Amino acid sequence: MLSVDFVTQLRNLLPSDRLLTDPVDCYAYAYDNSRKIFPPAAVAFPVTAMEVQSIVTLCNDHGIPLTPRGRGTGTSGGSLPERGGVALSLERMLRIVSVDPANRVIVTEPGVLNQSIQDAAKPHGFFWPPDPSSAAYSSIGGNLATSAGGPHAVKYGTTRDHVLGLRAVTGAGKFIKTGCYTTKGVVGYDLTRLLIGSEGTLAVITEATLKLTPLPQARSGITAHYRDVSSCASAIVKVMALPETPSALEFLDAGALGLIRGRFPDMVPHGTCAMLMIEVDGPSRSITESSASILDACRNSGLISAEEVMDAATLWLARKTLSPLLRDIAPKKINEDVVVPVSALPEFLDGLARLTGEHRIANVNFGHAGNGNIHVNLLVNPDVGNEMNRAEKCLNEMFDLVISLNGTLSGEHGVGSEKRAYVGKEIDSTTLALMKDIKRVFDPRNILNPGKLFPADPPIE
Amino acid sequence: MLSVDFVTQLRNLLPSDRLLTDPVDCYAYAYDNSRKIFPPAAVAFPVTAMEVQSIVTLCNDHGIPLTPRGRGTGTSGGSLPERGGVALSLERMLRIVSVDPANRVIVTEPGVLNQSIQDAAKPHGFFWPPDPSSAAYSSIGGNLATSAGGPHAVKYGTTRDHVLGLRAVTGAGKFIKTGCYTTKGVVGYDLTRLLIGSEGTLAVITEATLKLTPLPQARSGITAHYRDVSSCASAIVKVMALPETPSALEFLDAGALGLIRGRFPDMVPHGTCAMLMIEVDGPSRSITESSASILDACRNSGLISAEEVMDAATLWLARKTLSPLLRDIAPKKINEDVVVPVSALPEFLDGLARLTGEHRIANVNFGHAGNGNIHVNLLVNPDVGNEMNRAEKCLNEMFDLVISLNGTLSGEHGVGSEKRAYVGKEIDSTTLALMKDIKRVFDPRNILNPGKLFPADPPIE
Repeated sequence: MLSVDFVTQLRNLLPSDRLLTDPVDCYAYAYDNSRKIFPPAAVAFPVTAMEVQSIVTLCNDHGIPLTPRGRGTGTSGGSLPERGGVALSLERMLRIVSVDPANRVIVTEPGVLNQSIQDAAKPHGFFWPPDPSSAAYSSIGGNLATSAGGPHAVKYGTTRDHVLGLRAVTGAGKFIKTGCYTTKGVVGYDLTRLLIGSEGTLAVITEATLKLTPLPQARSGITAHYRDVSSCASAIVKVMALPETPSALEFLDAGALGLIRGRFPDMVPHGTCAMLMIEVDGPSRSITESSASILDACRNSGLISAEEVMDAATLWLARKTLSPLLRDIAPKKINEDVVVPVSALPEFLDGLARLTGEHRIANVNFGHAGNGNIHVNLLVNPDVGNEMNRAEKCLNEMFDLVISLNGTLSGEHGVGSEKRAYVGKEIDSTTLALMKDIKRVFDPRNILNPGKLFPADPPIE
Repeated sequence: MLSVDFVTQLRNLLPSDRLLTDPVDCYAYAYDNSRKIFPPAAVAFPVTAMEVQSIVTLCNDHGIPLTPRGRGTGTSGGSLPERGGVALSLERMLRIVSVDPANRVIVTEPGVLNQSIQDAAKPHGFFWPPDPSSAAYSSIGGNLATSAGGPHAVKYGTTRDHVLGLRAVTGAGKFIKTGCYTTKGVVGYDLTRLLIGSEGTLAVITEATLKLTPLPQARSGITAHYRDVSSCASAIVKVMALPETPSALEFLDAGALGLIRGRFPDMVPHGTCAMLMIEVDGPSRSITESSASILDACRNSGLISAEEVMDAATLWLARKTLSPLLRDIAPKKINEDVVVPVSALPEFLDGLARLTGEHRIANVNFGHAGNGNIHVNLLVNPDVGNEMNRAEKCLNEMFDLVISLNGTLSGEHGVGSEKRAYVGKEIDSTTLALMKDIKRVFDPRNILNPGKLFPADPPIE
């Protein structure tokens, strides 16, 4: 509950159409794609950095939790207002400040959709490489907060590789400016990347200077179908050892293929237990050759069939078919995004099959195999017996397996609230304590997205 | 001066052949390529992370300045032990911990030379992209401390784009582990990039996990000679607007060409006042086409001649000839590495000519024009009249010009001691104060490279 005094002051900062306090209205800002519900007591819609700063300052003065929020497409609970307080929706900061093709730069406000950036860059022959599957409806601010990836990260890297500078307001209400406008720059500490992936716990990003990449001249695709997961995993390792890095290398396991086959019996060749979808991009003159090398690396004794695919729709058909099917059969599934070194994929997939078998958890696994980033989906129903208990045991052991293979708990979703219990498996206590000290520097009263990202909740002072 | 007690304790930490205290021996660790001299009172050569930690802890307990040092090739004074104390030379931490081609990773200790990493990666078809001109004799630790760049940064980025994780010892003597072993990973704050470019002021890096890049199949080169600097600058802008990003785009101005012509009258076509050296790399099948597009973009009314060059030695001949000539005529030259947006290069080069003219400072300018990173060399002789005064005025106004053009003071050399007086032009006081707070989190007693990187010296407590 917010005090009358606080709400009055908040009302003084924003026109009435940019502040919600009615619980019914606020409920629309209570959730994200983690499917948990935590209603905020108020929702503020700033449209300028000055407004962001005045809201942060007010919350800081009153010790009110403030949870920044893009479009709520995150899967880890990063934008959930767990402790109530104010949800700071950046969705109305919608201005693309400048498009500068000569310098390959776009400057944007945080509420702009990823897709709108692509639309602004494309006429000049450029794109912005981060492409989470939510690109059409997720905001740049959210992409920055989680260092979003996507299928093309295997060749192009993730969000943190494509940002030159930021403007932000710290938890203490201070304006800061990080990085620069050029691709080179080594003056001062790299606060840009410190903010990227910090899930709104350090500062609220009010402007980002994004680095654009030239659109590839040509694209080509390959689909490959395997009798078993281990021969598919071997092919992944072999493809990733080639000098031609594919622009996407996506994997579907037997569970995923089973779901697809249930609805579309003829989409995938008979006997397929694992499938790869590979995209290659580059200069028109070399694309055929690159494709041929990759096709060659796909061949092994477990291959059923592999073929070149000329159009993107056909290439991604199986993958696009999968997501709605998954939500249909398990709306409350647990969706993880662990990463292991590519060479450890066979061992990881073996181990995962063993663990899900032991704990009797139906599962479907797919994702960005080219950089070892697998979306593990445990198809649980919280209403069924002790399924959630078994799933949590399975998850816990899976994370141990990932760490033992030199992997990481999250490749692109972030920690949010969903994974914080496991962070201690990956980050030692000394390094975590240092991170908390850094949080304190930016946000001394712990008002910004309190409790997220860290395993233990630091108390609000 | 170090106390007898401190020196005795330091001796207990290291065998006698890994500790220098004789001033004559220490003098060899008093300088770097900034050509300033600040002798340390002792030089320690740890060979393990544990030894690093015990030395840092001892210095922290006694409040003794500790300056980490690679091979001393930096040009900004970053490794100068300005306040005496202990120089921590990492040059004997020489182990390449692992080479893992399947995952495109090398794990290395900080003393390993950049060139040794290239040598270890090459047999597997990979390279590590950062290539400062000191690559043959600079250490990875130093490359990390400054986020070193080099000519290939225009296509491949700088050091910060090619590191997956670090192990380090903070100024408080704590072991931390940052990042992960995979290219994707978003668990916790990005401390990896916070340490990269922090010039040894936060922590001592004891191990780095480096991401490798596939060697290009083919390379090609182009040299282009221009009647005047403005037509050359226009060509740079045009080349950088192409979808094919060159792997290097280096520039020499009239001053540089004049020097070369003085020694080698026929190396450069008559009438050339600006020159470009452009490298293209990529798949064999597309290299000819890429080269042709770039050659085409080079053509304008100011072009005297442009030609394809097949071997690297010929391509870089003029550039390699220049450096020794520069040192010969002005051993105490001021060497800057400012960056401006590529589209602002014509205006910057114009302004620079005006400023050096006004202040009567001979100058030679060249460098990584493809990302707007120009090495401005003011050929001063500190022993001649008020030349240094005039040079400093010129420098000050040049930095103002750079900032007014949305540029940065340093693209790859770092701040060190040489540029700290100007940092306030680029970074506002609020952001600087935040950076100092971060420094305090890592290094509460300000023992690590004290006084560097920041405009004002925080006192040693």
